[in-house]
Amino acid sequence: MDSVELCRELAIIIISAEVFGLLSEKLNIPRVAGEIIAGLVIGPSLLNVVQSSDFISVLAELGVIMLMFTAGLDTNMSDLRETGLKALLIACAGVAVPLVCGTLLYMAFYGFGAVGTAQFCQGIFIGTILTATSVSITVQTLKELGKLSTKVGTAIVSAAVIDDVIGIIVLTLVIGTNNAGTSIGTVLLRTALFFVFAFAAGHFLLKLFRFLDRKWPHTHRISVMALAVAFLFAFLAEYVFGVADITGAYAAGVILCQLSDAGYISRKVDVNSYMIFSPVFFVSIGLQTNIRDIDSTVLLFSLAFVGVGLITKVIGCGGMARLLGFSSNDALKIGCGMMTRGEVALIVAQRGMALNVIDQKFFSSVILLIIVSSILTPIILKMFYLNKSFPHRQPSVQS
Amino acid sequence: MDSVELCRELAIIIISAEVFGLLSEKLNIPRVAGEIIAGLVIGPSLLNVVQSSDFISVLAELGVIMLMFTAGLDTNMSDLRETGLKALLIACAGVAVPLVCGTLLYMAFYGFGAVGTAQFCQGIFIGTILTATSVSITVQTLKELGKLSTKVGTAIVSAAVIDDVIGIIVLTLVIGTNNAGTSIGTVLLRTALFFVFAFAAGHFLLKLFRFLDRKWPHTHRISVMALAVAFLFAFLAEYVFGVADITGAYAAGVILCQLSDAGYISRKVDVNSYMIFSPVFFVSIGLQTNIRDIDSTVLLFSLAFVGVGLITKVIGCGGMARLLGFSSNDALKIGCGMMTRGEVALIVAQRGMALNVIDQKFFSSVILLIIVSSILTPIILKMFYLNKSFPHRQPSVQS
Repeated sequence: MDSVELCRELAIIIISAEVFGLLSEKLNIPRVAGEIIAGLVIGPSLLNVVQSSDFISVLAELGVIMLMFTAGLDTNMSDLRETGLKALLIACAGVAVPLVCGTLLYMAFYGFGAVGTAQFCQGIFIGTILTATSVSITVQTLKELGKLSTKVGTAIVSAAVIDDVIGIIVLTLVIGTNNAGTSIGTVLLRTALFFVFAFAAGHFLLKLFRFLDRKWPHTHRISVMALAVAFLFAFLAEYVFGVADITGAYAAGVILCQLSDAGYISRKVDVNSYMIFSPVFFVSIGLQTNIRDIDSTVLLFSLAFVGVGLITKVIGCGGMARLLGFSSNDALKIGCGMMTRGEVALIVAQRGMALNVIDQKFFSSVILLIIVSSILTPIILKMFYLNKSFPHRQPSVQS
Repeated sequence: MDSVELCRELAIIIISAEVFGLLSEKLNIPRVAGEIIAGLVIGPSLLNVVQSSDFISVLAELGVIMLMFTAGLDTNMSDLRETGLKALLIACAGVAVPLVCGTLLYMAFYGFGAVGTAQFCQGIFIGTILTATSVSITVQTLKELGKLSTKVGTAIVSAAVIDDVIGIIVLTLVIGTNNAGTSIGTVLLRTALFFVFAFAAGHFLLKLFRFLDRKWPHTHRISVMALAVAFLFAFLAEYVFGVADITGAYAAGVILCQLSDAGYISRKVDVNSYMIFSPVFFVSIGLQTNIRDIDSTVLLFSLAFVGVGLITKVIGCGGMARLLGFSSNDALKIGCGMMTRGEVALIVAQRGMALNVIDQKFFSSVILLIIVSSILTPIILKMFYLNKSFPHRQPSVQS
């Protein structure tokens, strides 16, 4: 990797993100959507002046880790305690409804298969792609709107973190029906162990940081060490416990959100994010996508897939939220906030193709879902938040 | 490159930099020296828990670019105008003295060679290795001491930037005697063109940024766009004009230092630096070094090489500074500030080995010079600044 070439790419990425971010602000849509479009414009879809590279992807991944760390840091602990169980139920409904409906959609297009047949496995895989929310876009949108540290914001973020875990469990289960991979028990055990570890380590870390905080309050030292802990947790989560790295970073943030300097740390990490990592991450979503690759033979299926993908999250998560006592407006915000799909959907699709369970052509449907949900979700969320009177209709409660 | 593995490495790098930085503060030596030692401790020299990788090197390079950009931003323009010509003369003397003395040192150890012989070329190459100052460590030390924006600080930084350029011209000249590479005329022309370009583009950029500054003063936008310009200049300098990327970043900083928001931009870029990039850069100097590799057969030569490397910069730069009217204390600061060697020395040595002009074994001498100068310079500079009465002796003025 050539650092000079990277300077060129970073300059283009940052400037285009800024220009499209500004344009989207003028059009009253969130910056995030603008930055993703910037990636589509400068990437292989249109101008092709920047291509996604290993280095850009890794910088983007560091960006997501920082984003989830600050989401954790900005958590209101009493809100989290109050919404924790609710978030679990919302996440479960938000996995179940898209999984079932995605499977049925595939069968509606390509024929019904009995349990255990290849046809059934393909359907289940398509359903599994729809399970995991990509929370980063919603986090950034809620941040822009100043609504991240609200009860609804906390519910969305924690439900999305939980549904990542459930998504991975479902994937393991589905792969398990195909080959002898990791057992579902192992996955559940490792996930449980991670949370036990985070709880125990969190206790010790809080003591250490409270000491640092007393000795050097409001110093570089606190924020630098906190960021190092975020990276450490991200590593341990994925490497030792097989949980996603962003779950680790979020857990580190939730632990450290109890410090009096949590806001200070969050602001410092935030400067890092918006200067380089966050534009790189959102632009890279656009860069990784080549609109020209979208396969027209599955266009009708793709459109239905996108529709089902979006609506089932609203029904599943929003419906459950309404059942749990959120107002219908808040339930809709939660449902819509959970619509975004991202890297986990791509991972599931890639895993499925590698195992020859699903066909290459469905990849374009996944890409379309990621783009549409990434651009639509921030716009819809902003509409809900800025136009509080809109809409008051009750969501269908079917989960 | 695996982002999870990178998280582990970043966590270790940041924590060790912080711990050794704190220790060195307690021992009253600059943090930078501590961070370099941290790299030696966690790297292949001792614990070997982190190895230098492509990704770490590129992150480190981005770190140097940001460091030089803030050095440019913190420039006092009237100081630069006043010291500009002086810096040029200091740089010339600081190239000539080490070049001549390094050549003579080689010949004293390995036999005299007439002009044009292989022996002569080897001597000249060893001399060339000693020409270019690595300014980043001095910049960081001056920053820590709050002395970067002084007349002495400006003289050191601009002289070091100029001697990088001269160093590259000398290298081209030396290589030109061996093969038909780029001609010296081309190098001079491209360098001149870069400064013409920077001057012209600077005029336009200042207008653009003054507009942005009026419209959105003190906003993310200004600092993000400024950083993008730094990356762009770094790219253009190296790719189009064949000048070092850090020279481009420094030029971008000098242009934007005339903005009223220059201090604001500098502070924001600085947060980025100290959170990730700067520890990665200084620790990576230690990581790239394996003390165990130091070749004992050239130990005596290496020690003499290090001694000559350090003393000739003090004599050349310090002596010229004294001749130009700096006080003897300031002249010593300038001479010592220019002692550090870094990546350019490594590049020259590698180029020499690739061309079979110098032997592999001299690489260890270069590494030793880099370590010793990187650790000694901050300590000596701090001594000079904190103990103003010390030392009052006149430096030898022989350049």
